[in-house]
Amino acid sequence: MERLPKYLHRSQGGLWLTEDERDNLKISYRIKDVLFEEDSPYQHVMILDSHEFGPMLVLDGVVQTTSMDGHIYNEMISHVPMTVHSRPESVLIIGGGDCGVAKEVVKYEEAQRIDMVEIDEAVVRASKQYMPEVSGNLSDNRIRYHYTDGVKFVQDKCEEYDVIIVDSSDPVGPAQMLFELDFYDNLQSALKDDGLMVCQSQSPILHQEVMKQSYERIGSLFPYLGLYTAVVPTYPGGLWSFTIGSKQELPNPDELTFDKDAIYANEDLLRRCFSLPAFLQKLLDEETASLAAVDS
Amino acid sequence: MERLPKYLHRSQGGLWLTEDERDNLKISYRIKDVLFEEDSPYQHVMILDSHEFGPMLVLDGVVQTTSMDGHIYNEMISHVPMTVHSRPESVLIIGGGDCGVAKEVVKYEEAQRIDMVEIDEAVVRASKQYMPEVSGNLSDNRIRYHYTDGVKFVQDKCEEYDVIIVDSSDPVGPAQMLFELDFYDNLQSALKDDGLMVCQSQSPILHQEVMKQSYERIGSLFPYLGLYTAVVPTYPGGLWSFTIGSKQELPNPDELTFDKDAIYANEDLLRRCFSLPAFLQKLLDEETASLAAVDS
Repeated sequence: MERLPKYLHRSQGGLWLTEDERDNLKISYRIKDVLFEEDSPYQHVMILDSHEFGPMLVLDGVVQTTSMDGHIYNEMISHVPMTVHSRPESVLIIGGGDCGVAKEVVKYEEAQRIDMVEIDEAVVRASKQYMPEVSGNLSDNRIRYHYTDGVKFVQDKCEEYDVIIVDSSDPVGPAQMLFELDFYDNLQSALKDDGLMVCQSQSPILHQEVMKQSYERIGSLFPYLGLYTAVVPTYPGGLWSFTIGSKQELPNPDELTFDKDAIYANEDLLRRCFSLPAFLQKLLDEETASLAAVDS
Repeated sequence: MERLPKYLHRSQGGLWLTEDERDNLKISYRIKDVLFEEDSPYQHVMILDSHEFGPMLVLDGVVQTTSMDGHIYNEMISHVPMTVHSRPESVLIIGGGDCGVAKEVVKYEEAQRIDMVEIDEAVVRASKQYMPEVSGNLSDNRIRYHYTDGVKFVQDKCEEYDVIIVDSSDPVGPAQMLFELDFYDNLQSALKDDGLMVCQSQSPILHQEVMKQSYERIGSLFPYLGLYTAVVPTYPGGLWSFTIGSKQELPNPDELTFDKDAIYANEDLLRRCFSLPAFLQKLLDEETASLAAVDS
């Protein structure tokens, strides 16, 4: 009998991955081929070549990024903070094992130091080899790879970074720590006195509680707070949120300038990603009011 | 043995709908209850109460709209044209059997005549009864319901409408005619000399060919052309496109004003929905250049 990799099944004569993350909604991808499979010390890592989205990085059976749309998420989590900060010389990337964030960050000449902290070396190795559209097959010598726990890495850092980008997976398993107040507090300490951090904060529609919690926690630590959205076709809910905590006042989005080569991002879109749907703006206004009440 | 409605199956002790529309990507929704089921003369119509998205309208096994996110699509296909046109007194809605577009259009006092043309009376009846969050349970006496073929309805109309909204399902089966050049040509004739039309033109990521085709066909008939996007969480690809063909020059989006009560739409978002991702702007620039070459 055929040995199928974990999480895959055969149906209608084809090979399928069915994401089992949610109880009430299941997404199934038809798979051409298993390009990479390894049980790392942290998780089950696969690169699956899919019919609809090309090669996809799959961790513990959940799709993290695809060759077709991975650039959207990676461009938006990178170019917004790198553009909002006036001179991002020292950058820390936490997570981002697919190397897609690093690929965007190296486009900034002023970034002289780029630390990338990914707990799982297998993810980096697999992504570089099988998803060059996402990873960019990076060999830029400004990047220092640290295969260690991001939570521990930032604990003893003090005012070292201009920009910190937290590219985590969903807040279950190892990534849960990357959504905790203690972690954000350490990021705050690791940032220079005009530094800023950004993290993915899940879907404002399907994971509104997680988004609100990140917003509140970051808002309790940073004087300036921002939230923007992008569309990520292969993430459930489509609309995705990113939260910025900053030590310096955020610029007017209409004054952002952007001249990098990108597939999804352009100057107009970066300026306008802070324009939020009515329900989301209302929710954030309420959060902002309650954060202000705590402060006073 | 239990009789299951068409398109539903039992698995893991639950009732599921699996959309079979795409060969390589399947989305499965866990279902609480079948609220409505009817084989109409045109299609199989169901309202299914789902765990993740609440009641959903399902035609021939494909989810059309849900109580949770139906307002996003309906607000964006309605408020953009109604705001772009300076005085939309006479409005034609083609399709839109869930009544969600009509619900938004009646918010405009200046709209004195609202014709809604839906081929399938069963869709309207089911939506009004089981999805009031979407349909609004409309009884506004400005709306005239025409249960007939939208393609035939517009054939003999001449300069009658300010705004025409084409809220079609995907371009397969009966809705295919609503993506044809002849149909757009009839819409052109049915519009007053400063009128405009809008249609949903599918995902710019997963259905780029359909989107390009609509853009080219509408561009060959109307002097002014626009394209905007919105996020529709339950549509595959998340990012959705809408194409406008207009007889009058389109206003600068930054000058649009909007004061209606809505869940997703607000003035900022309506102004900014015309800001497109880099790849999409580039694609439309190429299309515009080739349309200009045909004209000259």
